[in-house]
Amino acid sequence: MKTLIRNATILPMTGPEDMLHGSIMIEDHQIVAIGRESTNFKADRIIDAKGMIAMPGLVNAHTHLGMVYFRNYRDSSLNLQDWLEEIWKLEAHLVEQDLYIASLLGIGEMIQSGTTTFADMYFFQAETVKAALDAKIKANIGLTLFGDLKESKHRVATILPELQQMSGGSAIKIDIAPHAIYTCSDDTLRYAVEIAKQENSRFHIHASETIKEVEDSLATHKMSPIAYLASLGAFSVPNYLAHGVHLAAEDYPILQNKHTSVVHNPSSNCKLASGIAPIKKMADYKIQLALGTDGASSNNTLDMFQEMRLSAMLAAISTEKTILFSPYDILQMATIGGATALGRAAECGTLEVGKDADIILINTDKAHLTPLNNIYSALVFAAKSSDVDTVLCRGELLMQNRVLQTIDIAQVMKKTQTIWEQMKNRN
Amino acid sequence: MKTLIRNATILPMTGPEDMLHGSIMIEDHQIVAIGRESTNFKADRIIDAKGMIAMPGLVNAHTHLGMVYFRNYRDSSLNLQDWLEEIWKLEAHLVEQDLYIASLLGIGEMIQSGTTTFADMYFFQAETVKAALDAKIKANIGLTLFGDLKESKHRVATILPELQQMSGGSAIKIDIAPHAIYTCSDDTLRYAVEIAKQENSRFHIHASETIKEVEDSLATHKMSPIAYLASLGAFSVPNYLAHGVHLAAEDYPILQNKHTSVVHNPSSNCKLASGIAPIKKMADYKIQLALGTDGASSNNTLDMFQEMRLSAMLAAISTEKTILFSPYDILQMATIGGATALGRAAECGTLEVGKDADIILINTDKAHLTPLNNIYSALVFAAKSSDVDTVLCRGELLMQNRVLQTIDIAQVMKKTQTIWEQMKNRN
Repeated sequence: MKTLIRNATILPMTGPEDMLHGSIMIEDHQIVAIGRESTNFKADRIIDAKGMIAMPGLVNAHTHLGMVYFRNYRDSSLNLQDWLEEIWKLEAHLVEQDLYIASLLGIGEMIQSGTTTFADMYFFQAETVKAALDAKIKANIGLTLFGDLKESKHRVATILPELQQMSGGSAIKIDIAPHAIYTCSDDTLRYAVEIAKQENSRFHIHASETIKEVEDSLATHKMSPIAYLASLGAFSVPNYLAHGVHLAAEDYPILQNKHTSVVHNPSSNCKLASGIAPIKKMADYKIQLALGTDGASSNNTLDMFQEMRLSAMLAAISTEKTILFSPYDILQMATIGGATALGRAAECGTLEVGKDADIILINTDKAHLTPLNNIYSALVFAAKSSDVDTVLCRGELLMQNRVLQTIDIAQVMKKTQTIWEQMKNRN
Repeated sequence: MKTLIRNATILPMTGPEDMLHGSIMIEDHQIVAIGRESTNFKADRIIDAKGMIAMPGLVNAHTHLGMVYFRNYRDSSLNLQDWLEEIWKLEAHLVEQDLYIASLLGIGEMIQSGTTTFADMYFFQAETVKAALDAKIKANIGLTLFGDLKESKHRVATILPELQQMSGGSAIKIDIAPHAIYTCSDDTLRYAVEIAKQENSRFHIHASETIKEVEDSLATHKMSPIAYLASLGAFSVPNYLAHGVHLAAEDYPILQNKHTSVVHNPSSNCKLASGIAPIKKMADYKIQLALGTDGASSNNTLDMFQEMRLSAMLAAISTEKTILFSPYDILQMATIGGATALGRAAECGTLEVGKDADIILINTDKAHLTPLNNIYSALVFAAKSSDVDTVLCRGELLMQNRVLQTIDIAQVMKKTQTIWEQMKNRN
């Protein structure tokens, strides 16, 4: 299958000056040429991208798809603790098949907003793997661990082989995802590192999200959460840490290594009043950064355009400087930064010959993008997820002219609603 | 002309519990009934709002439409001062007819994102009045003043009669808008108050936007900008102040009166690193609050949904509390709060019998709004401007099924682009 995208303004995200106008030639799942159209290339499918920007698909490096049910649910009428307790009660009623539909809904929403790869951490992971395979999107699915070593060993023994079997030969990767230092025992965290090493997987965890987490860690372990994770060997395997809002001076050198990425989740951090992650300071330390939406219950969408815009706004307001963290830096977090976090930098995150054709086309023929002027500013400050017109992942069309190609979204929305009504009555 | 909107989820914004499901009956420009459909009402036009939320049109209480040309323009490659100097050089080349097109583009973008009333402050105001009349949107157009008394008197004498004549008998109001305390002489500010009183107009000004403004005011006038404005009589006429980011303790009681509103512009305040306005504290003082986008050069859109979401995020992060400023409070700022600021509370800002039919319909049949759950949370945190399906202002359809009815937007976008290319070459 040969696909030709022509007449595009191409942002390869290999450098701010690398912008060009022209064509992208795709053979099966790979980009084979970028630039001038080759007369030898006999395309089976031609996509006219006139007036559109072609850029790498976005990478949502931290989410919990199963939480879509709790979107906008009592999030303004209860305080955080009461709300969490309500959610936990509901989560206790989730059953396996609920997760397939929730995952498909979340994936549909992500494709509609330009995401081609995501990292998830939740329950009933096999259902999310199944949904990702059906929707033909890329995913790093975390085998979520919590509690003591016995429970964790049981989960690894029963769930890991199934996930590995399902995802074998696909674009799905299975990561090891202990939930957090305050929900996992020391043994579980050490065991998670061991399994990640053994399975050549990545280690994904929530870390330094709230002041409470940091204070509790200092009280219990006499160390920051980052130092504590280091003491357990977590940085001896490739890893990505969600949040990193409250960092001590001694945390920065620990995070400054090429196997670690910090995933910034600005909407969730604002909405839950956790704090503003110091992304500028992390960038100064050359700490690798990625971007995520977190779950739909604390956001309340899975829209990476919202995250990019909010990142830029918070970076300016928290450093009191407008230009320290540029729109290009933000776009990097959302593309190659995410690909790096998820162990996919060789495969996606930029548009380059030999990489997968994970490409989004953004329609700039909109009043709010006129005049366009600086494209990077336009994408971060003015573009909306609804401007994403077409999405390809590994050369497959996931959305064209805003119509999803691999998901019957009307059906999925209906089922989501039905399950949610049932769930509220289960007890 | 009788219009019937049926099957809507109606948020009248008269109170959080006043939500209902049903119909809105409109005769000419007014709402004549809300609730159950009357069999006596013989509609000329029926709008089926099944799956849609009907709510008051949004009020963008502070913008500068003429700045759409500078959208995304060098805003990330220059520092603020250099960028402003570049903009000022370009503004010197603006000619009258440029403003008609810029205003139509901005109005088109605002209608597409659910705004039915806006307040503008810029040059060549007659062109913006003309555009607003042609587009059938409501507007408070500021007669902008700056410099010394002589210049201001000249502007009032030459411009005000024309603006009043053009807007007479329409839904356009002419306000008196001295730019700021640092660009207007004492005399000009006093004169602006006098003219506002004489013409029964509102007083619109930028105030306490940056620390520099406050420090300069303390150095020059030995008072905060708010206290200085009070000393000149600004609070003796109905007034609305854009920004209010840096407020001294003594400013709050001054602002706490029913003739004053503060217009929050969170995107602009973040993007220019001005600071986070203390909207929670202002609300505690019962200071009336409205919401605005500011100009497209410091935002970079005119999208009130973005402003609502960012307001909620900043309120949570700056107070370290998630629930102090609720989504309903935010929606009030964007509707009745704006209507109050603009002297239109009796006429719009809520859906009530006898008020103008300024109504937007929001399509909730979207993955990112499934499940919908709390509607106010959904509108502030999850809805996007692209979910606005239909817009009515004074009973006139400004947009239906996302198609603008009073503006040929494709043509306007083309002309905007042409003028902008010419402008960059004028010198």
